[in-house]
Amino acid sequence: MVRKTIYAVIMAGGKGTRFWPRSRRKKPKHLLEIFSGKTILRETVDRIKPLVSDENIYVVTGRGHANEVRRQLPEIPEPHILIEPVGRNTAPCIGLAALHVHMRDPEGVMVVLPSDHFISNEKEFIRVLSIAVRMAARGSALVTVGVTPTGPETGYGYVEKGEILTRFKKEDIYQAKSFREKPDLKKAKAFIRSGRFLWNSGIFLWKTSTILDAIKVFLPDLHEGLRKIEEALDTRREKDVLQKTYRRIAPVSIDYGVMEKSGEVLVVKGKFGWSDVGNWDALWELLEKDAKGNAVIGQGIVVDSRRSFVYSPDKLVALIDVEDLIVVETKDSVLICKRGSSQHVRKIVDILEKRKLKKYL
Amino acid sequence: MVRKTIYAVIMAGGKGTRFWPRSRRKKPKHLLEIFSGKTILRETVDRIKPLVSDENIYVVTGRGHANEVRRQLPEIPEPHILIEPVGRNTAPCIGLAALHVHMRDPEGVMVVLPSDHFISNEKEFIRVLSIAVRMAARGSALVTVGVTPTGPETGYGYVEKGEILTRFKKEDIYQAKSFREKPDLKKAKAFIRSGRFLWNSGIFLWKTSTILDAIKVFLPDLHEGLRKIEEALDTRREKDVLQKTYRRIAPVSIDYGVMEKSGEVLVVKGKFGWSDVGNWDALWELLEKDAKGNAVIGQGIVVDSRRSFVYSPDKLVALIDVEDLIVVETKDSVLICKRGSSQHVRKIVDILEKRKLKKYL
Repeated sequence: MVRKTIYAVIMAGGKGTRFWPRSRRKKPKHLLEIFSGKTILRETVDRIKPLVSDENIYVVTGRGHANEVRRQLPEIPEPHILIEPVGRNTAPCIGLAALHVHMRDPEGVMVVLPSDHFISNEKEFIRVLSIAVRMAARGSALVTVGVTPTGPETGYGYVEKGEILTRFKKEDIYQAKSFREKPDLKKAKAFIRSGRFLWNSGIFLWKTSTILDAIKVFLPDLHEGLRKIEEALDTRREKDVLQKTYRRIAPVSIDYGVMEKSGEVLVVKGKFGWSDVGNWDALWELLEKDAKGNAVIGQGIVVDSRRSFVYSPDKLVALIDVEDLIVVETKDSVLICKRGSSQHVRKIVDILEKRKLKKYL
Repeated sequence: MVRKTIYAVIMAGGKGTRFWPRSRRKKPKHLLEIFSGKTILRETVDRIKPLVSDENIYVVTGRGHANEVRRQLPEIPEPHILIEPVGRNTAPCIGLAALHVHMRDPEGVMVVLPSDHFISNEKEFIRVLSIAVRMAARGSALVTVGVTPTGPETGYGYVEKGEILTRFKKEDIYQAKSFREKPDLKKAKAFIRSGRFLWNSGIFLWKTSTILDAIKVFLPDLHEGLRKIEEALDTRREKDVLQKTYRRIAPVSIDYGVMEKSGEVLVVKGKFGWSDVGNWDALWELLEKDAKGNAVIGQGIVVDSRRSFVYSPDKLVALIDVEDLIVVETKDSVLICKRGSSQHVRKIVDILEKRKLKKYL
């Protein structure tokens, strides 16, 4: 495997209302510094570098975030920041990137990565991805990385392992038997008991020709759109065609649109401390806590309190005799949420939208 | 009763850590706008005006707050802002004020008022005080206003009614049988059941000669100190003597030092929506709530939450799925406290002192 034929496509199109009040329209989750002094996007790019050289990294993002993405990733060639005129879920995003990579290198292998995930063991991550890249390069398979689950998560999709097809560098490579949407708790527990299910990491690998062919078969409308965009690339009409075509493209996820339908999906198992950190609760899970289960980022004084999370970069936050609380402070807002209910920050965002309190959005 | 012989002495010496983070060293409770757009001190002064003319109002405060008190009360003659060099509890404070009033009017009746209480029915307050003033003016009794209790409060002192001594304007006037410190809940319940106990409002009325005589009998050291201060009044030594003498005076409350010991205490019953609003919990009790028991002052969005209190003049505070919380936001701090535990804000203040985080004090 020659390193220069590996390409990374980082999907950075998320709106990220789930980390309100830290995430805002102009600062979705991947543009936040949540785990460290680096933004999640920056971490995602840095993490893939042992496998992919800078000039082979592509980032797909929205118009409102392109400048910030460029600013954060000065080493990425400017034409590799691909801008979707509107968000249309992952299949069009991946299709657009595949088009660009394919034009450059028809034999290239694409590693598709969400921009906003947490991974604690980067070395193991690269090891697993190296195996997956080899699988993708071999032939005509769509490859996905399935994460060994640590519990019956209801916030993730699942992929069901089928037969072991081969073994590579001591790793079993499975056929994918089915993809499942986020289950309820009962179903999630059954998944875990069965031992057959892995978390769907949203990490995919394939040759550009493979994914473009699959799109042609399973998403012919998207294929047609991509063809039009391709024709206009590097012409004066490019931006205009991209915009018009994107507007008409139906939003669909790559999982639903392609992976579930294809019979040729391989699964490489991974266990590298992965979390999609979908909300404040998920972040709390990842953090180190004191003896009473409290985690404090920033300025916090915690008295007689248990299992609580304070995220307060600016102000002093004092807790007295509370438990299972999430407290997030920003320049203009404070969120106080029961642990386990942080998926409902959406409700706050909805209210803000209804009341046209734009400055908090 | 001629109005010009009535004097108000407002005790504004409180340090007020109990409303942290709103109350600070430089802004104790009575200098805060908590119930309305007016500070509590301003409200206290305005409330007494139907009974006492501006030039008969005295305010006793500490050095650190004198300028702010003057600023807030421009109508009070400058020499009537009495400054204690150090806080020595209520007996020295009252003694000092009695000295000043007595020099001006040996027959004057003093109404002693805490500066930081809440009273909802101001008309009734004035009616009750008018009766109490008449009792005080009659002779040599110390008069206190006992508030009809609405429940077994453990945060208040109590006064036990004795015999009915007389009746004035349809009100029974009682002899005080005993004064009791803040009881535990069991005792408080017994007090309420007995029907004999009233809340000690901290409002006292007497002729200046009466209280000064009582101090001479029950607190001879304080009397001696006051005598020295009196000698130095209006001389160059005044400030110096005040300071030296105050340092040596033992701190003691008027309740413990005089009222409990005197046999000549009268009690006038009052019921005028009184609360000493000693902490954030007490404030929550006084506020209007929505159907789920939430009270919001300032900017708050409350989702799926119950019996909570948001005090947020500046930032947006969003609550999700929480209950029985007190949330108080200020320019540099946020307090999040379980309802019922706000007496423990003291613990936060202690930690701030220990860590020398002076800017939050």
